[in-house]
Amino acid sequence: MSSHEKQHLPIGVFDSGVGGLTVLRVLQKYLPNESFVYLGDTARLPYGTKSEQTVIHYSLGATEILRNFGIKLLVVACSTASSIALIALRETLKPLPVIGVLEPGARAACELSRNGKIVVIATETTVHAGGYQRLIQQIRPDATVIAKGCSLFVPLAEEGWVEGPIAEAIATAYLQQLFSVESESLPDCLVLGCTHFPLLEKTIKKVIGDQITIVDSAVATAKIVKDTLEEQSLLNGKIVPSMTRFLVTDSPQRFVNTAIQFLGRPVSIDEVELVDYNFKL
Amino acid sequence: MSSHEKQHLPIGVFDSGVGGLTVLRVLQKYLPNESFVYLGDTARLPYGTKSEQTVIHYSLGATEILRNFGIKLLVVACSTASSIALIALRETLKPLPVIGVLEPGARAACELSRNGKIVVIATETTVHAGGYQRLIQQIRPDATVIAKGCSLFVPLAEEGWVEGPIAEAIATAYLQQLFSVESESLPDCLVLGCTHFPLLEKTIKKVIGDQITIVDSAVATAKIVKDTLEEQSLLNGKIVPSMTRFLVTDSPQRFVNTAIQFLGRPVSIDEVELVDYNFKL
Repeated sequence: MSSHEKQHLPIGVFDSGVGGLTVLRVLQKYLPNESFVYLGDTARLPYGTKSEQTVIHYSLGATEILRNFGIKLLVVACSTASSIALIALRETLKPLPVIGVLEPGARAACELSRNGKIVVIATETTVHAGGYQRLIQQIRPDATVIAKGCSLFVPLAEEGWVEGPIAEAIATAYLQQLFSVESESLPDCLVLGCTHFPLLEKTIKKVIGDQITIVDSAVATAKIVKDTLEEQSLLNGKIVPSMTRFLVTDSPQRFVNTAIQFLGRPVSIDEVELVDYNFKL
Repeated sequence: MSSHEKQHLPIGVFDSGVGGLTVLRVLQKYLPNESFVYLGDTARLPYGTKSEQTVIHYSLGATEILRNFGIKLLVVACSTASSIALIALRETLKPLPVIGVLEPGARAACELSRNGKIVVIATETTVHAGGYQRLIQQIRPDATVIAKGCSLFVPLAEEGWVEGPIAEAIATAYLQQLFSVESESLPDCLVLGCTHFPLLEKTIKKVIGDQITIVDSAVATAKIVKDTLEEQSLLNGKIVPSMTRFLVTDSPQRFVNTAIQFLGRPVSIDEVELVDYNFKL
């Protein structure tokens, strides 16, 4: 297929569930002419509590569906899969460009931080895997990285409790101490290292203060995706109505129920297709 | 195999993850002479967010491992699997006795409530599946059942935040209104309809008051298990040191890390065996 023909293919976006819709939302904003096919591996979510071997196995199986669908680039919107399975995915899917959310987020933090003191918040698994920490240290060896697991932010976002006293109390418990230090040690940059966390940005800002730069990995990722498509002459130049399709491995209804708060618009059940999760097992 | 030989077999306890250890803990207390083999299907947890079809498929696959191991009775400690997969499990595993946590909990609530106004708290999925509500209405047709999803209690228990201001604020948000009604409508009984919730019992009591009877489904289940073993002459009469083995489908280390707060004692990595989750797929 020529690169001219490839231009019309959709961009694949892969996540373990609904969280990656925050990434899709930003991608759609930055690339309004592009079509997307989103796959949520809802039969096996969440990836964040599974072993590395299992995350790689699930990721390879799930993205096989997207490859067969026909895509011109794959965005791995799931932090856990980006952290653990990216090398395996690139190897298996080459020459398809595969872009994770970790490196763009880490790179943006390194550029935006003045004093090099960077806090990364993510799920326990992403913190434990250490991907953000390693990348930031590689890009900016003088940086000091503090990674903090904020696991309860995920169910808070799913419950829709993203503002108010409970969200603030939990954000305070996780974050206040990190930002209540002597001014010379004060971090000046916070990376939202989980797809669910942008929903809590307002509450997080209220707890840590306005002077801290918040890096949304989704925004950083969308910029890299745009650059990559430009470099490889894969941007869809023709102004045609862009299409978005949603694939899930379990329960389209549940996906539809939760999608709205992550995507910022309702998803109709007719837009969602159930695919077989036994594909590779 | 004669019932005399069967007496020495362990009791199987099946859950999607670590939560069922609260049930195992009570079973061990009520049946100190028995051996147990606990299976946590950690590669596919949680079941509570999956479709009915997927929960049945996973449950049949996972319990196959326990049957092959050799057990004399199966306890389905997972509320979701008890609610959705019990009939399929009984059909597939017969003549093995299979006991879920829903019916014992529902039966105990019907016996203990004086005015028949019963609140059931569980995950959204268990509430939505309606198993507790149906069973209570069948056992006691005059009962009024209010089922309330308290999904955030699960990550609170896993994070270890079971007491203190955050746990109390969340318990208040979920429960206070239900117990702030005119005295003639006041429920007098609360069923803990999720394996994780007994960890929050103290905080729940603080919010709803001491006068409400709290039914722990695990305790009700242990009594039924004991009765069933007695009826079928399957109790292990010989006072021998009882053994407990743990099987998981993913990440023994993660299981060990979380087990202590659910089981009330540390689990050593040597006690945990990884089994293949591809068994039936």
